[in-house]
Amino acid sequence: MNLKYADRLQNLSGNAIREIFKLLASPEIISLAGGNPAPETFPCAEVARITTKLMEEQGSSVLQYGATEGWMPLRQEIVRWLPGVGIHTDVDHVLTTTGSQQGLDLVCKAMVNPGDIVLVENPTFLGALHTMKTYQAQFRPVETDEDGLIPQALEQALKDGKPKFLYIIPTFQNPSGRTLTLERRKAIARIAAEHELLVVEDDPYRDLRYAGEALPSIASFDEAGYVLYLASFSKLISPGLRVGAAIGAPELMQKMTIGKQGADVHTSNLSQAIVAEFLKEGLLVPHIAELCNDYRVKMEAMLSAISENFPAQVKVTHPEGGLFVWATLPPYIDTTALLKKATEHNVAFVPGAGFHCDGTGTNTFRLNFSMPSVANIKKAIAILGEVISDVL
Amino acid sequence: MNLKYADRLQNLSGNAIREIFKLLASPEIISLAGGNPAPETFPCAEVARITTKLMEEQGSSVLQYGATEGWMPLRQEIVRWLPGVGIHTDVDHVLTTTGSQQGLDLVCKAMVNPGDIVLVENPTFLGALHTMKTYQAQFRPVETDEDGLIPQALEQALKDGKPKFLYIIPTFQNPSGRTLTLERRKAIARIAAEHELLVVEDDPYRDLRYAGEALPSIASFDEAGYVLYLASFSKLISPGLRVGAAIGAPELMQKMTIGKQGADVHTSNLSQAIVAEFLKEGLLVPHIAELCNDYRVKMEAMLSAISENFPAQVKVTHPEGGLFVWATLPPYIDTTALLKKATEHNVAFVPGAGFHCDGTGTNTFRLNFSMPSVANIKKAIAILGEVISDVL
Repeated sequence: MNLKYADRLQNLSGNAIREIFKLLASPEIISLAGGNPAPETFPCAEVARITTKLMEEQGSSVLQYGATEGWMPLRQEIVRWLPGVGIHTDVDHVLTTTGSQQGLDLVCKAMVNPGDIVLVENPTFLGALHTMKTYQAQFRPVETDEDGLIPQALEQALKDGKPKFLYIIPTFQNPSGRTLTLERRKAIARIAAEHELLVVEDDPYRDLRYAGEALPSIASFDEAGYVLYLASFSKLISPGLRVGAAIGAPELMQKMTIGKQGADVHTSNLSQAIVAEFLKEGLLVPHIAELCNDYRVKMEAMLSAISENFPAQVKVTHPEGGLFVWATLPPYIDTTALLKKATEHNVAFVPGAGFHCDGTGTNTFRLNFSMPSVANIKKAIAILGEVISDVL
Repeated sequence: MNLKYADRLQNLSGNAIREIFKLLASPEIISLAGGNPAPETFPCAEVARITTKLMEEQGSSVLQYGATEGWMPLRQEIVRWLPGVGIHTDVDHVLTTTGSQQGLDLVCKAMVNPGDIVLVENPTFLGALHTMKTYQAQFRPVETDEDGLIPQALEQALKDGKPKFLYIIPTFQNPSGRTLTLERRKAIARIAAEHELLVVEDDPYRDLRYAGEALPSIASFDEAGYVLYLASFSKLISPGLRVGAAIGAPELMQKMTIGKQGADVHTSNLSQAIVAEFLKEGLLVPHIAELCNDYRVKMEAMLSAISENFPAQVKVTHPEGGLFVWATLPPYIDTTALLKKATEHNVAFVPGAGFHCDGTGTNTFRLNFSMPSVANIKKAIAILGEVISDVL
């Protein structure tokens, strides 16, 4: 076979995390590499019960073609749920998506010509970098610190030619675990309006808070329609259902809907209807409380195991929620080589290079605490502490 | 709000059929416009039972993240099902997709640079034209007759610069209802291999045959890996689940998988697992037999109502299966204006212009017989016959 592929796939290989997953087939490996929810938290019985109810009461609608904009009862439930993040809106601002990854894909489809600039945190979610690369975006990193993206750095970055949008994960960021402060959220909404800059606010971890006070979204401070808010039910209910939502200005929603018509016509009605019913029955809030209780214990176990086992030269973040702890080693350590050693001892993590758009971060790595058990977290961190001590 | 959108969305509006759907909200309208399966055929009880079983036995896998390549039991069941269309293959050749529309989207993503040429039948499925337009493909129509695409015309079309692929619906084509003959299937596979031309064979209606003998797919004659076969369960089980599959050479599947990672990570596991179980339990074959019994009666009712009610100047196709009858009026009739008159009498169809890539076909329209009842088919065709007689 001899085919000439499209330019957009040049230099694009598979998403590094998903490739690592394939190497982790061995049951002996303790993986701190994923970003998966704990499977024991999945509401299997509720999904079965709700599906039976849906099939009895409205099976012929659920199994039929649906609107590209989304399953209306889900759009309505999302509108009722959004005030919790400070967003007061209506269904015309809501497009349901096949996971929130599709929300990012569709905003790229609507906005990005090859070579266009996108502003990103550095590090940022490598799956998002992958999606944006398929649209041949060029990345311009914006400086961050312990409090997230620095507004002054954003204003500086806007001086070098106008970007198509800023992609930001403000809460329990992937991979760093950091959270943008309230003042900075307001500042970024103000800068967006002033500079007519679209801000793509990806917020899948927001409700997984184990300490501190919840913060309103950047979108809640947006009066000019420049913030697109991406919500996800993957971490809150189930990633396997693939349900997310994009919330933003109707004009942009219409452009994204045109893109979605061509991409998959609409998201699985069954998945959407299950999530809608889960919300409608009031199951989400108590379910999130259970998740937080589970993950809080795991995060604390990981952080205390790290302080007991990691050499002092390793700096780690101390998040108040989410799924990840982020580690920075001395600059001379290559964490891709370190991963190889760690897997020889049956522990895996994600090397940090893939989260950086500029070739930096080779001395960093990401640890996940939601998926493994507390016992495995303690065991894996102890092993990893030894592996790191060996190379330092 | 003032955003600069991407070039690919210029001149792209919503898919015409889906826009018509929105106008059809009135319950008095008899719509012959859709391409929807009859909702009374949906296996609601089976979906409920299978979901309960899945949640009990493997809920923590179904609700977890899955592989981009697809739910392995579904890929395996598809491999077992494909010999029915003459394809003998393995799971490495199978990528499950969020509806077969996504299969087309992903092959465009893998292959098409802006301005690249794609060969199409004229008319062809307007949803496919929409997807290809989002990749800024240029269309080159290939001549067809009552037996489908003409191989000599394909060879001729290949002389004017190399296209990226041929998109073809060989069986009960949408919108024409025509079926490509056996000899032409062989000829197209041969031309594809000789010219290193990718053929995207979209075959969602193949099992909905009400008369005549089943034909092997073009892909069944492909020994060189140049045919990508798109299968869909939308018409056979349920469109609302959004499950299709792309079957082709592993190298192309890998490129499409990289695109799918960025697009939606993976298709809903629940939807995939339901379809897998439906196939595994042997429910598909008897279900298709029921569908065919239902649709055969509807198609015959439509064709005999047409012969009783339509003026002789209207030419219609007489398909052996699928969902559509295609009508051609004298050249001076504009079917978009005719639709307006028809909806005033509470009947809707899809004007043919949108199925043509070159501005022709303004005197054609498509009729669907799967969705309306037999009584409504008779009533609607009688009304449409009068509306047409009035304008002739």
